[in-house]
Amino acid sequence: MSAVVTEPPRVDRETLTRAMRAAVDRLDDHLRLVTGYHLGWCDLEGRATNASPGKAIRPTLVMLTAEAVGGGPDAGLSGAVAVELVHNFSLVHDDLMDRDAERRHRRTVWAVWGDATAVLAGDAMLGLAQEVLLEDASPYAARASLALAEATRELIHGQALDVAFEARSPLTEPVSLAECFDMAAGKTGALLAASAEVGALLGGAPPAACAALRTYGAELGMAFQLADDLLGVWGSPARTGKPVFSDLRSRKKTMPVVWATRYGGAAGRELARWLAEPDAHDETDLRAAADLLDRAGGRAWAIEEAWSRIRSALRALDAAGLDDRRRERFDALARFVIERDL
Amino acid sequence: MSAVVTEPPRVDRETLTRAMRAAVDRLDDHLRLVTGYHLGWCDLEGRATNASPGKAIRPTLVMLTAEAVGGGPDAGLSGAVAVELVHNFSLVHDDLMDRDAERRHRRTVWAVWGDATAVLAGDAMLGLAQEVLLEDASPYAARASLALAEATRELIHGQALDVAFEARSPLTEPVSLAECFDMAAGKTGALLAASAEVGALLGGAPPAACAALRTYGAELGMAFQLADDLLGVWGSPARTGKPVFSDLRSRKKTMPVVWATRYGGAAGRELARWLAEPDAHDETDLRAAADLLDRAGGRAWAIEEAWSRIRSALRALDAAGLDDRRRERFDALARFVIERDL
Repeated sequence: MSAVVTEPPRVDRETLTRAMRAAVDRLDDHLRLVTGYHLGWCDLEGRATNASPGKAIRPTLVMLTAEAVGGGPDAGLSGAVAVELVHNFSLVHDDLMDRDAERRHRRTVWAVWGDATAVLAGDAMLGLAQEVLLEDASPYAARASLALAEATRELIHGQALDVAFEARSPLTEPVSLAECFDMAAGKTGALLAASAEVGALLGGAPPAACAALRTYGAELGMAFQLADDLLGVWGSPARTGKPVFSDLRSRKKTMPVVWATRYGGAAGRELARWLAEPDAHDETDLRAAADLLDRAGGRAWAIEEAWSRIRSALRALDAAGLDDRRRERFDALARFVIERDL
Repeated sequence: MSAVVTEPPRVDRETLTRAMRAAVDRLDDHLRLVTGYHLGWCDLEGRATNASPGKAIRPTLVMLTAEAVGGGPDAGLSGAVAVELVHNFSLVHDDLMDRDAERRHRRTVWAVWGDATAVLAGDAMLGLAQEVLLEDASPYAARASLALAEATRELIHGQALDVAFEARSPLTEPVSLAECFDMAAGKTGALLAASAEVGALLGGAPPAACAALRTYGAELGMAFQLADDLLGVWGSPARTGKPVFSDLRSRKKTMPVVWATRYGGAAGRELARWLAEPDAHDETDLRAAADLLDRAGGRAWAIEEAWSRIRSALRALDAAGLDDRRRERFDALARFVIERDL
């Protein structure tokens, strides 16, 4: 597991994009423009652009899983579109709630069109997701829709925790690591678990394989979030599309930060005091905080925890009954998630 | 159709409320509190209250339809819960978008807990709606879920139009009556149409009956919205839960207002000029505007249009194949909608 992988396992991005566009085309002119802009297809006036399409890790997982359990080449397509729509619903609403004005080097929907449009565009994508999946003629589509609806509830729970954590002082009301895991399991784990499960269901997998692939997705999701938490501090703005030290700037209670303030000794306690200060910080200050996080062991712990989640994900695959060639693709996806920028 | 009806046809409110509570109980503590407060079950601290439960016209229609086409007594229950959740998702998000601080004599969710919580509570109800319906073991549940997802898209389109209309001057960029009908068909018609269709589907009705009942619901919805538009001007605050002349105060482009400013002669043109004035108005002023709306014929037109929609709704029932006793209940519901306060 040491080779550096820079691309996820190939899925047919063109087919996926075509299906995404067909779904979004059902919206009215204004919401189609807003959604197309958010998805990187066009600029503010609707002119086609070549903005980075994002990693599409969730639809990749759906397509991969549906194919791996023996579904036809497009068995997972409606599910892939649906999970990508749910993911993007959550991004548009989260940006509004967190008042993040930039994503992928572009202004966010609320920052361009205002709160009402951001609420509506998110709502529209959440509704479309179920519509696309329920229109699939597969006998497994309803079960897949239910899995997606359950994951949506967990996703909202995760975001609700994130919002609630904002208000808590790292000194007087510290967030516990268990609470932080709960948030990450909701915000990231649930939809990756559902992606694997939806793919397995649409591909016609038996219950034991669905459960195994679901666990793979959930553990992969935790690894993915840990990698994202590290990128939020040490990732280059060119890669993340966000300002340098972004998560420290906004004092986000990410997993490495919570671990460090709890178990990171003197450096961790100093980091907690720094996070509790209400003042804005300049870049020298942010760099000092990042060093504290590193010295407290938060970075090393997050890397080890992410690898441990990847190992759990791969162990879960044992019960999925995949042949070696197919299994290799899930190994490659897992490595991609964790090695993409670390 | 002349007898005054003050109660909708009876459905088992206790069963409905129990099923609604079972759905909302899946949410985490905070979102359960927020949603329970919004639904009138508890106060801000979670203490049980006896707030008015609302008219529950949508779940009533689902239950009535499912039973009328021959489903068992609880055949429509999951659908009734689902449409009521979608309706309340839209109320919570609309209050946020419109910055309405009061509903049913209580502060709205965003006004109490802030924007993020209102976004999350609405999202959670929309997700729950699909979850509840898809868990129904009925072979028709997936088809009903799809009908609900389609209606959700139309509902969001209607609200998007409402938001867009806000910014248009009645003098230089007037909203046409066709646009206004489109908005009402989305905001109110779509979910009432889906309520009748979901009930018919869950009750096992053949396609022709489903289509007929769907049309009944759509026309009933337009009548309902017209009645609501009149209540928004002439309804008593005790009945509406909103300030007197509420829709004039906010210069809402309702159907009677748009009709009056377009086809209401001199009084209508004066009303358009009044609506285009940016200043706040006192109650004498608001009363004068209501008189202009009346003199321009907006009130009389809306009453006649509402009755015309009711007649269309009842005509649509001819194709539903209902016996006289069952048909009578749909007549009663239609009369209730239009006569409740006019």
